[in-house]
Amino acid sequence: MNILALDTAGKTAAVAVLRDETLLYESFCNVGLTHSETVLPMVDTALRACGLQAADIGLYGVTAGPGSFTGLRIGLSLVKGMALPYSTPCAGVSTLAALACGCVGQGTVAAALDARRGQVYWAGFDLATHARLTDDAAEPLAAMENFLRTCPKPIFFVGDGAALCYNTYKDLPGVLPCPPALRGGRGAGVGLAALEAYRAGGCVAAAALLPDYHRLSQAERERAAAENTAEARL
Amino acid sequence: MNILALDTAGKTAAVAVLRDETLLYESFCNVGLTHSETVLPMVDTALRACGLQAADIGLYGVTAGPGSFTGLRIGLSLVKGMALPYSTPCAGVSTLAALACGCVGQGTVAAALDARRGQVYWAGFDLATHARLTDDAAEPLAAMENFLRTCPKPIFFVGDGAALCYNTYKDLPGVLPCPPALRGGRGAGVGLAALEAYRAGGCVAAAALLPDYHRLSQAERERAAAENTAEARL
Repeated sequence: MNILALDTAGKTAAVAVLRDETLLYESFCNVGLTHSETVLPMVDTALRACGLQAADIGLYGVTAGPGSFTGLRIGLSLVKGMALPYSTPCAGVSTLAALACGCVGQGTVAAALDARRGQVYWAGFDLATHARLTDDAAEPLAAMENFLRTCPKPIFFVGDGAALCYNTYKDLPGVLPCPPALRGGRGAGVGLAALEAYRAGGCVAAAALLPDYHRLSQAERERAAAENTAEARL
Repeated sequence: MNILALDTAGKTAAVAVLRDETLLYESFCNVGLTHSETVLPMVDTALRACGLQAADIGLYGVTAGPGSFTGLRIGLSLVKGMALPYSTPCAGVSTLAALACGCVGQGTVAAALDARRGQVYWAGFDLATHARLTDDAAEPLAAMENFLRTCPKPIFFVGDGAALCYNTYKDLPGVLPCPPALRGGRGAGVGLAALEAYRAGGCVAAAALLPDYHRLSQAERERAAAENTAEARL
């Protein structure tokens, strides 16, 4: 089965084509362009390199969140558009699980994305099995300290929040540095997380593929605040 | 400093562009085509994605061996051709060190390439520091057993010889599996190994960039065998 995997949840974009557990092609782009500019050419290049077309894809994997709301919508829309004509199953995977699935070793990997407003999206995973140790959360950086103190060691951070986390927690015993070039989300990780979801019966049709934002958008927060203020005035 | 990194030592091809320690672009191709077909378009796509030209590259990194003799010559020739006009420094790095530099964690990584004729090219590296634990060697698979029994644990195998090594040694304590999709050589690993060589003063001019085959070619072995036979007849 050919798997096309896509990550546009953060500032970087990643694409991979797998045939079952074998990686056929992978690309990663971190050049400051928006995903609407980079990701279609990346998918086109990936499919051409493998001699494949959309009709040959048996499974789509895409990071469904957490992450940038706009980024998630670009990736999900692209996958919906490609999967719909052939009724290809889709796996919307956790951005944090996909980051963890790109790593190997023993101990713990903490995947962390900069969620702004003093928060990180984060979750911990077992390095050897990629089993989830905590739920995806949007929390202040301080909220992960208890987990870091008690999880199996060693532990390192990946994702665009990795530097922030490492700089805060590097003095805890068992916290390892991770070279910046190896912290980014890999397409292979998305593909492996999607394959796991497929085998667990966790796929959906294109129409049912939805983002998992993990918190309200800025517009929703502002409306809620305005409504609260209005109610307080009554 | 912009770094262009290239790996054509095995059956897979990998390219990366780094800006110092930051990964700007990376691609990996494992589709059964020869490197002479895949690697030039991969380099072209990488440079275009980053908005760079050969004149903008401050350092070339390329896997100089061990590996397929033809593959090494393709990668080295390409880098020589790109680096010569601008007198850009070149780092010919160990294919095995580049594999290790693509990994993170604590313990040991054994990089292994299938050298055919019952042998593997292999070396062990510390996962956290990427410090070399053994020299690159072309040896029968059995030759690594003592190292595997005594090296810091956990240990996992990467490279196109990883499956062979894991299947042979998986019952040793501390030997971890590594998902097939994560075993391939990453361009980022070549780039990080090249940056390390650059900082240690280990770069050369394009003309001085040479392959490191680690053993005689088939033609040389056959000539030596023929000469031995001829001598024995005298």
